[in-house]
Amino acid sequence: MAPPLRLGIAGLGTVGVGVLRLLQAHDQLIAERAGRALQVVAVSARDPARDRGVDLSAYRWLDDPRGLAADREVDVVVELIGGADGVALELTQAALEAGKPVVTANKALLAHHGGRLARRAEASSSTIAFEAAVAGGIPIVKALREGLAGNRIGRVFGILNGTCNYVLSAMRESARDFAPVLAEAQALGYAEADPSFDVDGIDAAHKLALLAALAYGTPPAFEAVYREGIRHITAIDIAFAREMGYRIKLLGVARVTEAGLEQRVHPSMVRLGTPLAAVEGVENAVFVEGDQVGQTLFTGRGAGAGPTASAVVADLVDLAKGHRPPTFGRAAGRLQPLPVAPMERHVGAYYFRLMVVDRPGVLADVAACLRDHAVSIETVIQRARSEDEPVPIVFTTHETTEAKMTRALARIAALDSVLEPPRMIRIEAL
Amino acid sequence: MAPPLRLGIAGLGTVGVGVLRLLQAHDQLIAERAGRALQVVAVSARDPARDRGVDLSAYRWLDDPRGLAADREVDVVVELIGGADGVALELTQAALEAGKPVVTANKALLAHHGGRLARRAEASSSTIAFEAAVAGGIPIVKALREGLAGNRIGRVFGILNGTCNYVLSAMRESARDFAPVLAEAQALGYAEADPSFDVDGIDAAHKLALLAALAYGTPPAFEAVYREGIRHITAIDIAFAREMGYRIKLLGVARVTEAGLEQRVHPSMVRLGTPLAAVEGVENAVFVEGDQVGQTLFTGRGAGAGPTASAVVADLVDLAKGHRPPTFGRAAGRLQPLPVAPMERHVGAYYFRLMVVDRPGVLADVAACLRDHAVSIETVIQRARSEDEPVPIVFTTHETTEAKMTRALARIAALDSVLEPPRMIRIEAL
Repeated sequence: MAPPLRLGIAGLGTVGVGVLRLLQAHDQLIAERAGRALQVVAVSARDPARDRGVDLSAYRWLDDPRGLAADREVDVVVELIGGADGVALELTQAALEAGKPVVTANKALLAHHGGRLARRAEASSSTIAFEAAVAGGIPIVKALREGLAGNRIGRVFGILNGTCNYVLSAMRESARDFAPVLAEAQALGYAEADPSFDVDGIDAAHKLALLAALAYGTPPAFEAVYREGIRHITAIDIAFAREMGYRIKLLGVARVTEAGLEQRVHPSMVRLGTPLAAVEGVENAVFVEGDQVGQTLFTGRGAGAGPTASAVVADLVDLAKGHRPPTFGRAAGRLQPLPVAPMERHVGAYYFRLMVVDRPGVLADVAACLRDHAVSIETVIQRARSEDEPVPIVFTTHETTEAKMTRALARIAALDSVLEPPRMIRIEAL
Repeated sequence: MAPPLRLGIAGLGTVGVGVLRLLQAHDQLIAERAGRALQVVAVSARDPARDRGVDLSAYRWLDDPRGLAADREVDVVVELIGGADGVALELTQAALEAGKPVVTANKALLAHHGGRLARRAEASSSTIAFEAAVAGGIPIVKALREGLAGNRIGRVFGILNGTCNYVLSAMRESARDFAPVLAEAQALGYAEADPSFDVDGIDAAHKLALLAALAYGTPPAFEAVYREGIRHITAIDIAFAREMGYRIKLLGVARVTEAGLEQRVHPSMVRLGTPLAAVEGVENAVFVEGDQVGQTLFTGRGAGAGPTASAVVADLVDLAKGHRPPTFGRAAGRLQPLPVAPMERHVGAYYFRLMVVDRPGVLADVAACLRDHAVSIETVIQRARSEDEPVPIVFTTHETTEAKMTRALARIAALDSVLEPPRMIRIEAL
């Protein structure tokens, strides 16, 4: 067997400790599959004194993780610090400059700096491997980079954030609104104290930018991702969705249209009975549409120490075999920035809900606004009746453009009988 | 860019022509992803005169495909002839002896001779790549070999034969029996004129043996796969399955138990509402349970020119990058034959249906047989009543062993009031 691949691990939180545990527990099995041992030689984290429940005595401790980049005994740097900038970025740059491959779970880093870092990696014949950055242990990065290499990719989309999916599942099951369910998810450890990265769709947008880069040969373009979170989803919309045969999921969707690269993260209505609608709780699911393969679906747990460590080790096994896959699946110089498809050009069907005064003529007014913008109604439900309180009316439309829909809704919002801003949720065709 | 990877393709049926078309259509895209061009230099098939609807004029024609092995211009042999022996085997052996990697869709060849061929490949620093042999375009071979390399694999199971899944779906939808639905599937081209490979579970068993080899580091052991096809499935069992909340699927299941390696292909009851139950028609689906990653699911089209060509090209792109993954994911000399778990040791729940004389005491007799073999009943349904004709009674059991179940059913079959051999279908816990 070849000599061991020597690792330096930066960051010993849940994932870092998970990687150490996995390398210790399955050392033989991993060596069989890698053709050589994976040997941790050095680790670095903020607090050397903290008890992490794992034996660190065999590894050199570095107070400054950036020291791993220059360390002569370290062949590969495993960056599990997190954050788009700061130490994670400095360590990654320094390691690549030293010709060392970097394995990372850091989606923010790559979503923001991926194109530049890929070029830097290539300049030193190195690479960045990031299976752990998207959809936990599901080997979706490898699938897009290698397994589906013969396909022109149509749409890539899926449920990319387990926290949002958990919250939406729990809202539906308990018929509660967002705030109390989020509080419960925080108490259970499924949501962070500061939930913004998850519930505002930032985390999903990071991942989507990486999937799009792999699928379309473009540098990750996080700033170009249209983004809308789940804070405004209500129990009433979830109930109407069910009535109309849908479930509400936070989806990330990427595709190339005539208008350019469309990347969007937002709550979506997905048809009940489809595989995506059945993905509940903290599960992730990614659909890839290839012109040869048709529609393929990959599901599994999207986060947690085990799945993420599984993905990190998969990348390490590749590196141990001598593979240096280009960071985004092709030469960095060949990654082509694509024009950004503006959201107004998005074509799809829509759900929207109005809270209106229950009097004759309201529906006629709304229908006229839609007609004037050439938006065609598919269904209308107006069930509740009340002379005193606002009542909901919900609509679904046939396919139209976001531009038409936005203008129609602006007109509708201005109607006297419409008492609250309309709530709009896009319908994703599966 | 590196010089082109030069290919010799043997076999120009649906898949071979599909590969040629794909290489022609996406030559640029594939070269970007592979870092070099994939160039077909020679082809071979039985009939040079046949019009295959694809331009072959740029390729040298060989009447004998075995000539590709020695051809100095051929770097990689693509074997799409099929069959466990004969020309496909000879070509594969000769190519490996010449140090040429072989890319194949031939599950029969590898299920029968995989261990030996893997050693031969290793001896010449070559390899056999077979993504196309299992589950069409779903990159499940890569997922098991690389993407989940950090996991001890628990169970690997799934829907591995699209023909059987199509037939079972159509039987359920139209409430018809096996024979007319098979005839229809044959007329539609979803089943072969000789359907035995599919409907008797041979094809699924080939694929299962390959998945088990990758998952457990063992040479493929096709002879050790317990195998039962779908010919004996009836509309009545499908209807009862639905009533009890199940769907009947032909599953391939592999796992390592205390008794050894269990590999089995047979019709199974899978719980409605689970993702496997929702896989209909010609779709394939593979579940992999990893100790780190949890349960992951991969679905997509399992056959056809496009998906299979997609898988062949994925393997070619890997080879073009210089990767030579060991055939079954680890050094051939380290593949360990595992003891075969005899089917009698299988532990699971069971469904069975009896056709009985409708008179008092029948249920008591059957229940006594089950009790005597320590098989515990979960549900019983006896709905139809008739003094003249046999009526069905169906049972489901709690978990028991196949040995106990077999003995209990033998006793039950011998009861005077039981008019036909019992029909037994295993229930797979998901």
